[in-house]
Formats: sequence, C-alpha cells, structure tokens
Amino acid sequence: MTVPAQCPEFAEIARRVNNWGRWGADDEVGTLNLVTDEVVRQAAAGVRSGRRVPLALPLQQDGVQTGMIPGRVNPLHTMVAVNLEMFGPGTVATSDDVVTMGLQAATHWDGLGHVSHGGRIYNDRPAGSITAHGGAAFGGIEKTRPLVSRGVLLDVARARGERQLAGDHAVGPEDLEQAEEFAGTRVQAGDIVLVRTGQLRHFLAGDKHAYAHPSPGLSIRAPEWFHARDVAAVANDTLTFEIVPPQIENLWLPVHALHLVEMGMLQGQNWNLEELSEVCAEEARYSFLLSAPPEPFTGGTGAPVAPVAVL
Amino acid sequence: MTVPAQCPEFAEIARRVNNWGRWGADDEVGTLNLVTDEVVRQAAAGVRSGRRVPLALPLQQDGVQTGMIPGRVNPLHTMVAVNLEMFGPGTVATSDDVVTMGLQAATHWDGLGHVSHGGRIYNDRPAGSITAHGGAAFGGIEKTRPLVSRGVLLDVARARGERQLAGDHAVGPEDLEQAEEFAGTRVQAGDIVLVRTGQLRHFLAGDKHAYAHPSPGLSIRAPEWFHARDVAAVANDTLTFEIVPPQIENLWLPVHALHLVEMGMLQGQNWNLEELSEVCAEEARYSFLLSAPPEPFTGGTGAPVAPVAVL
Amino acid sequence: MTVPAQCPEFAEIARRVNNWGRWGADDEVGTLNLVTDEVVRQAAAGVRSGRRVPLALPLQQDGVQTGMIPGRVNPLHTMVAVNLEMFGPGTVATSDDVVTMGLQAATHWDGLGHVSHGGRIYNDRPAGSITAHGGAAFGGIEKTRPLVSRGVLLDVARARGERQLAGDHAVGPEDLEQAEEFAGTRVQAGDIVLVRTGQLRHFLAGDKHAYAHPSPGLSIRAPEWFHARDVAAVANDTLTFEIVPPQIENLWLPVHALHLVEMGMLQGQNWNLEELSEVCAEEARYSFLLSAPPEPFTGGTGAPVAPVAVL
Amino acid sequence: MTVPAQCPEFAEIARRVNNWGRWGADDEVGTLNLVTDEVVRQAAAGVRSGRRVPLALPLQQDGVQTGMIPGRVNPLHTMVAVNLEMFGPGTVATSDDVVTMGLQAATHWDGLGHVSHGGRIYNDRPAGSITAHGGAAFGGIEKTRPLVSRGVLLDVARARGERQLAGDHAVGPEDLEQAEEFAGTRVQAGDIVLVRTGQLRHFLAGDKHAYAHPSPGLSIRAPEWFHARDVAAVANDTLTFEIVPPQIENLWLPVHALHLVEMGMLQGQNWNLEELSEVCAEEARYSFLLSAPPEPFTGGTGAPVAPVAVL
Repeated sequence: MTVPAQCPEFAEIARRVNNWGRWGADDEVGTLNLVTDEVVRQAAAGVRSGRRVPLALPLQQDGVQTGMIPGRVNPLHTMVAVNLEMFGPGTVATSDDVVTMGLQAATHWDGLGHVSHGGRIYNDRPAGSITAHGGAAFGGIEKTRPLVSRGVLLDVARARGERQLAGDHAVGPEDLEQAEEFAGTRVQAGDIVLVRTGQLRHFLAGDKHAYAHPSPGLSIRAPEWFHARDVAAVANDTLTFEIVPPQIENLWLPVHALHLVEMGMLQGQNWNLEELSEVCAEEARYSFLLSAPPEPFTGGTGAPVAPVAVL
Repeated sequence: MTVPAQCPEFAEIARRVNNWGRWGADDEVGTLNLVTDEVVRQAAAGVRSGRRVPLALPLQQDGVQTGMIPGRVNPLHTMVAVNLEMFGPGTVATSDDVVTMGLQAATHWDGLGHVSHGGRIYNDRPAGSITAHGGAAFGGIEKTRPLVSRGVLLDVARARGERQLAGDHAVGPEDLEQAEEFAGTRVQAGDIVLVRTGQLRHFLAGDKHAYAHPSPGLSIRAPEWFHARDVAAVANDTLTFEIVPPQIENLWLPVHALHLVEMGMLQGQNWNLEELSEVCAEEARYSFLLSAPPEPFTGGTGAPVAPVAVL
Repeated sequence: MTVPAQCPEFAEIARRVNNWGRWGADDEVGTLNLVTDEVVRQAAAGVRSGRRVPLALPLQQDGVQTGMIPGRVNPLHTMVAVNLEMFGPGTVATSDDVVTMGLQAATHWDGLGHVSHGGRIYNDRPAGSITAHGGAAFGGIEKTRPLVSRGVLLDVARARGERQLAGDHAVGPEDLEQAEEFAGTRVQAGDIVLVRTGQLRHFLAGDKHAYAHPSPGLSIRAPEWFHARDVAAVANDTLTFEIVPPQIENLWLPVHALHLVEMGMLQGQNWNLEELSEVCAEEARYSFLLSAPPEPFTGGTGAPVAPVAVL
Repeated sequence: MTVPAQCPEFAEIARRVNNWGRWGADDEVGTLNLVTDEVVRQAAAGVRSGRRVPLALPLQQDGVQTGMIPGRVNPLHTMVAVNLEMFGPGTVATSDDVVTMGLQAATHWDGLGHVSHGGRIYNDRPAGSITAHGGAAFGGIEKTRPLVSRGVLLDVARARGERQLAGDHAVGPEDLEQAEEFAGTRVQAGDIVLVRTGQLRHFLAGDKHAYAHPSPGLSIRAPEWFHARDVAAVANDTLTFEIVPPQIENLWLPVHALHLVEMGMLQGQNWNLEELSEVCAEEARYSFLLSAPPEPFTGGTGAPVAPVAVL
C-alpha cells in the first residue's frame, strides 16, 4: 500500500475533509479564507502583555537539513562586499550578502503546490501547472494574503507531562483535545494551530539525525480534527510534520496530501516552539496574536517565514 | 568632500544623534530597545478593523535590481523537484524550490553591520568584525528580537497632494511634520515610521531605471527628527533610501551612516506602501500594528522581510 | 509557421541529417562517436609550434547575459573565506569561493538534452526524460567522453575581408566552403569546427545588447554541410549560435533542433575566437589540436568549457 | 608549533624553494612560466595512441564534500527550464540549468590566492589584495594561460604494489623517485605531475568520510623535489592534497604554503587517477599530453577543471 487513492482509510478521510470548490473554483488560498478581519481584530484585542516570542530558527549553513532530501540545502550565506568603500577611500563603506537556500530548508510554510497526488493539487487543478520554469502557476506562496491571525499553542508534550514525545508518537485528535483542554481555550475558525511535540530539542541539543528520524508528528487522523474546527493553518516543531516512519506502512506523506491537496491548508515545519512553550506556561495563556507571513516568492511551493507570537 | 568625518555638517549631526553606549557597551540592537512590551501592547490595542496590508514586493527574478550594485542579485528561484514521486509511482509527489538572492535585493531591512565609516560600526565596534566568513559577528540581523511595534505611515507624497515626489526631493523634518499632521497622530518612542515618497510607482509601472535614479529620499536632516522622537526603525519606498544623487556633493550614504552606525537604527528599503496609502486614506487612520521581523540570517548585514500592517 | 514539424524545409533537412540509431539505440553521445583515437592521434601529430590559445570568456558577473533569457544568470562569484586562519592566529590562512551561474551563461557547450521538438530528444528518446530533479537522464553532458580532437577555424569574417559579419548574415554552406578554402585545409570526419563571425567584438567593446541582437549566425542550411563532412561538433562566437531574428519567420532555433535533436551533435556558443583568428592568420594555419571537455555536470543540458587550441 | 614562520623545518624549505621575483615582480602565474611552447610541442609529439582519459569527478550534489570545510558546497544543479516552449506550443523547447558550487568543491586547481601565510601571497604581494568583493586581485585563476603540457603519472601506489597507500603515508622524494623509475620517464621542466595515492578509491566505493581522513598525501619534503625538477604544477587524488593529520603536529597546510605562496605553483585536488592508472599500466607508458585549463573565474582563488590525458 503506497498509493493514497488505493488506501481506503486515506480515501475516506480525503472525501470528508475536501474543500475543493468551497471558496470558488478559482480560489488559490484555501483555508486562509477563514481568517477574516474580525478574527484578526479579536486576536489583536486578545493581546495582554505585548511580549513577543520569535519562532524561527536562525538561517545558517549549520541548519536542520542533513542531505537526506536532495536539493533542500541549508542556507549558504556569503558576502559580496565587506566594508567596501565604493565611493573612494574614507567614504561610507558597505557590506552586502547573498544566500542560496532551499525554500523549505528551515522554518517554513509549505505552499499549496508543495505536494500533489493522483495528478491533482488543491481545487482540482492539474499537478502539471507546476513547472521547472516558474514553479507553481496556481497556488504559489505569493498568493497568500499576509498571514496574521490568532495563534493557539497545543503543547501536546507539556500537556502529557513529557519533555518531548516519543519517536513513535502519532499525534491524533485525542492528543489535540487534551492539549486544548490544557491550554484552556477552544480552537476556533481561522485560528493558526501550533502543535508542540518537543522533537526540536534534539536539534537544539546538536543532534540533527535524531531530530530527523524517528520522529513524532501528526497522525493521519489529525486533519479531520483541524477540518472540524476550521483552522486556517497548522505548524509544528518537526522536520517532516508527520510521524516518521509512517503509521500505515509505505503510505508516505498522507497528512501533506490531506492538508495541502484536499483541504487547501498551509502547514509549517521546523518551527521553534520551545521558548513559546515556556512563556505560555509562565503566563498561563496559550493563545496570542500570530504574525507569520511567508516570504512572497513568486511561484514558490513553500517559503521561509519568521513567525512571531505576540502575547 | 566625500569623507563623512571631514564634512562638518555630517560630523555635527553625528555627534547629536549618537547612541553609542546608551543601552550598554554590549548592546547589538540599538533603537529596537525602544520597542517595549508596553509599546506593543498599545499597538495591538489600537487595531480597529483587523484589515491586513502586505508591504513586500514579490520575490522574483524580475525584481528591482538592475545590476547597478554588484552582487545584489534579484531572486533566482529554481525548482529541485517538480511532482517528484519519491516513494514510487502513484505516491504523494513533492515539489521543492531553492533560491539565490541578495539579502538586500528586494523588500528588506538593513542590519547594523550594513555600513561602516571611519572603521567603526554601531556601538564603537571595529568594522573588521565583519568578515567574508560569517558576515557580521556583531550586530548581525539574527540578533534583532522580532520586530513588531506600532507603525505610522508618514505619507509625504499624499500630504503634499502629489502622486509621487519629484526626483530631487530630499525629505526633511518639515516634510515629516507635515505628513505627521496629515496623519493625525504623533510619532512616539518605539514607533516604526514608514515614509512614503511614491517613488515605487516607477517600478510598479515597469520602469526599473526610473525607480533607481534620480530618486527622492531621506535628507541628511531627517535622522535628527527620528532621533528626537526616539523612533525604533524607519523604512521607505525607494531603492537607496536616501536622495540620489546626494544633497552634499559626493557625500554618499550619509543617512545610512547616521542611522546604522551612529544611532544603531535599522532602516528598510523597497517597501511597497501603495496599497497601505490607499487603505490609510480610506480608513482615515495612519497608525497600525506593524509586524516586520527580518529573516534571521546568522551574521546577515541585512535581510528580506515580509512586513504586514494590521489596521 | 513556428512549429518545426510543420515547416517543409525544416522537415526535409531533418530527414536528411538524422542520426538516430546510427550508433545504436542506446547511444548518448551522437557525433562524438566520430572522434576516434586515430583522429586524435593525427591532431596531436599536427601540432607545430606548441602555442596555446584560450577560447573562453572570463567568468564574471559582468558577462554576456542581459537578462533576456530568464534564469540564465551571469556568474555570481562570492567568497566564503578570505585569509581565514582556520587553525589559529598566524597559521596558514585560506580563501575559498563559491559561484552561482547558468551552465549556458558564458562560453559553453549545449548538451544533447538542451532542446527537444515534437516531444523527442536525440535518438528518439522522450523529452520527458529531462526532469526538474536531475536534469537530463539521457544524453547528459557528463556522458560525453573528454572532448579533444582536431579543430578547424572557419574564419568566415576574415575570409570575406570583413571585421565582423553584418547582423543579418546567415552563415550557409557557401560561406563555410569559402572559409574552408581560405583555411587551406579540408574539414574531415571527427573535426570540431569553429565558425567565426566576429560578432563577439560587440561584447568585447562593451556593448552586450549589440552582441545579443541582431546577430549573424548559422543558417538553417549549415547543418547539412556539417553532416556531409561528419564533423563531431561546431562552436561559434555568438550568443544564440543561429541568426537572430530567424531566417524563416517565427521558426526559432531550427539549427539547435537539427544539431542537437536530429544529428546528436554538441554545439558551442560565446566562444572567443578573436585571438585565435589573429594567431591562425599569423601562422597561416587554421587547424590545431582542440581540447574542450565540458565540465561534467551530472544531468547537465549544457556546461561551461574552457577550450584551448594548441597550434 | 602551528605558525609556519616559527617552524624551522618549514622556514628552511621555504627559503630554498622560493620563486619570488624569479619571473619578475609583476608575475602572476609562477611556475606556469616553465610551460614553454617547446614543452607543449614535444608533449603533443609524444602522443602515441590518441586515447583520451578523463580525470574529473562528475559534478553533482553527491560529491566529495562532507560539510567539514564550511562553505565549500557540493554542486547544487537545478533546472530553470525543462522543455519550455518559449515561442509557443509545438515550437522548439529548451531546457536550461544553473548551479551553485564551491569552486574548490570537486576536481579543481588551487589558484595562487588560495592560501597566504605571514600576510603574504606569491611574489610578496599582500594577502589583503584578496577581498570579499572580487576575490584575488593578484594571481586570480583567470590569469593562468591555458594549462596544457606534458603530464607524468607518478603512480606511487602501483609502484609500491599497493592498491592504495595507507592513511598515514606521507609521500616524500623517495616515493616520487620510486614511482618515476617505475614510470620509466624522467620528470622535466614544465611537466605537470600527477601523484596517485589511490585514496580516491574510498570515495568511489561510497565512503566519503574514509576518503577525507585519515588520508595519505604529499609530505612537507615533496615540494623541494618538485622545485628541483622545475615542474609546472602538481595534482593528486586526495581531498586535502597533503597528509591528514599533518606530519608536524599542528602545522596545517605546509605544502599548500610552499607550493602556492613560496613557489607560485598551482596544485590540484580530487583528481580521479584510477582509469589513468589502468591505462598507463596497460600501455606501459606514464607520460602523455595533459590538457587541464581551469575555468577562468575572474578573481577565483581556485577553479573547477575537467582534465584530459591524451596518450
């Protein structure tokens, strides 16, 4: 069993969570439609302390990628000028940098073009609309309106009293509900949900390979829960987002297929939720204003993001 | 006259706006210290409609750079995988992208290491702390705490009843005050000020060269005004930020030197303020919550940013 | 008329020059099969003076590309280390560079995967064998055995007593024969033919746009001449190789299609033949040992080359 | 002991092999001056079979670099177009590639600017002539005239009856002479010497880490031998060129310093000498015409090369 369409469990869930046509045949942003002005207004009104917590990993060559995913290279940051006195000796000197990096190499959003199955992407568009010249003609990451909404941290690890989840822990609806109860707030339409597994602690401790696999991650049963709550986007603190190796033998990336293709919902990976976990625990508050606009690469099937939670 | 230190006007202003030591000898973020939790709390409380306006240009090869600044290359976005069925025929297929770009090529923040003069950068550190391997060891863009604060649009062009300022218009304190009055709000400590000249309309109309020069921009007299108001950061809608060619013959980039080196204040370039100008005029409100965290490149002397104004 | 298959003249020539199957159904190098050990042995035996002439343009950001061909970027050369004392103060210091560049940006060979028409590449393979992940699975530039053979300069411009050909000059069989007679040597099986138009003088004089177009180049009637002589490869001193704009209205790149797809013959562009022209005239000898191995990029549809003529 | 100048053995050898001023104060190519037309003429005359042997590793992401040397990234080859019908449906379609790579990442030449010691590079020039913007202003790799000469394979491993040298084998004059005797030809002025250790077999067998270290390589005593013979350049089949870890404790890269700085002699690394070893043994001939022109990156402190031996 490796082909999604031939896996009854996958096919059944796909049918239930499918959003194709829900916001019109031309819609390219999917569940981001759920982030209304009113949702954002209330998220801003919910800010209490003004404290800001950054959720991005630093962008550097010593990043989370290990070479396992060909082409997804860690940021290579080089200087094209170092204190260059362009206008003559003693004038104002400039330093300038360039970078080469995988758009999905570090803290990022997967865009709606990032995966396809059965030859289709979100909203029943052909996978062939993604090309080597230009990337995603439909659903490119630059199409997303700026991603600001209410964020809710579902700290699954902390709710279970664990530093980090076990490598074979598939986060399912019961985990999400336990964490929601622990958070003391109900996940609502338009929310961006951050699911903390604690897995990133491996990377922060210097072990990239332990971070990569085995890894806890979202279960194939999680998308229905997000669908039921009408969340706008989901991010977590793992490399692959899903449990690795997969729950259903040889069925790789089913959650990607459900979120991106069926639901039209962005998902985020490699988010650093460690400081946020501490701050939320300290303030006993797990919701906040979340600003997480992807860098608008034209045709991007994903993009780096430097998210900020404002409490 | 090309050397800042030998230009009396520059030297005098530098003396007055200098912030070295103000936040301690080890401080690496300068005026961002002015963004307190309370400033952010109030900025969030000021949100009325929940409307979000993006301020970044799309990242694409057809960008604002013309080759005039060597090495500052427009984003080259390429695919490393297009609907690749990594796990076998019929499995979930992935698309993946990489990019090569100048960190200061599009909508960006200049970091504190971006310029030096007289061999020094902010807080009296040696310019030599910036190297080809690693970039800025002091004041790197990754050191900035997430940049969220109150934003104020000083729409100089609209306040003057112009579509865009003339190419030789140096925006000085009197322009800023006129725009502030037009905005109906007073610029306060910790604010991020966005100065609109309308110059970006050239680029949006397809003329990169007209956008580049001649260009209106900030006058050498502007930094004192920002210093007096204790603003946290300033961005505008031009390629060079300052007036091009310079006001004082052959004195290039004096505002860069004052903001980055003397004051320790980030500055932003190539921000798209056109939609924001329309929305502010429509809502008759020129202040908002501004989220603009730079991508945290380790050692970066600048970084792309995808700013969002939340009204 | 833009589709090759529907242009009778193209179709007729294609039929006549087609080499599919000539060296077996699995052959991936085409006319390079014509370069036998004996050809190379004789080429070496023909060396007289030992003089070496380089034919590559320097690789630098100020190169021949103007942005007209999206993605074909001039070399961006940056340093990752400058006199870095990796092992401690006073130890041996190292400097190290990286580059980002289009493989076809400067002096290069087009590989057999560089163009397709009618969905096919050389030897009747599907164009779909070229993918975003991996490039050319068939006929990649790394498959070529090291490209050394006898080179013959057909100095069309000099043979006609012109400094450089006019912008609308399509180099056809009569030009090649005139230049061959001028050269005083007969083009033989396995030779690499260098066709000089003098067009590169525009670039060397600083005018990239004049270099790009209009441009003289090979006529659609040239491939039959190369086929009749069984040459191994052809290179010239223009950006596009062919005449620009095309001879047959709207039929773009017919010579590419004939050489690469039908004949399976590598072709080279942006070769600097100016010094060679002088040296050959001086030595009154237009044949030489030519060493021009492409950089072996796995899956490359082209590659930079630093060719050398040894006289 | 880590500083070359304070190591008596190093200082003594440096004094003896130093070529500063030998070819004039402005010379930028060092021992390449030894490659005269006559040397090349004789090398061509020595060709017997016309057989060509390539010596470059394929350029691909799965290359020899392991991340140990920061910034020296394996080639990242991506497509900017795949069968793109630029001129309309059915027209000739093009595929185009770009690459990002360390210039010294694969089979390459170290240029004269690659290392400095005591603040100097070759010909007593200041190390400071190498900068982040532009690289090597003096001795850049683009300055080398096309590198063609007689090549001699000193197959140290085969001469000793070993498949590959032990990891702690420092190749010294006695090894070189044994291999020279085995080769049956005397190394002469202007020759390019290829020293085979067999170490690359680790890489070819899939073990990059075993290839990297420990590694046999040239002894600090080898440069004097090359100097005595007036060789033009030396290359071998290891990652670091020298023995790793170093012979003299903590004295890193002494051979680099002697060859590049003192002698002004290019050196090559990661050359694949396996096929050449077989062919030379088969033909019982260890000299050949060697064509190995570096890609002429302006200011490059090294460059990729696709060398070819013609026997």
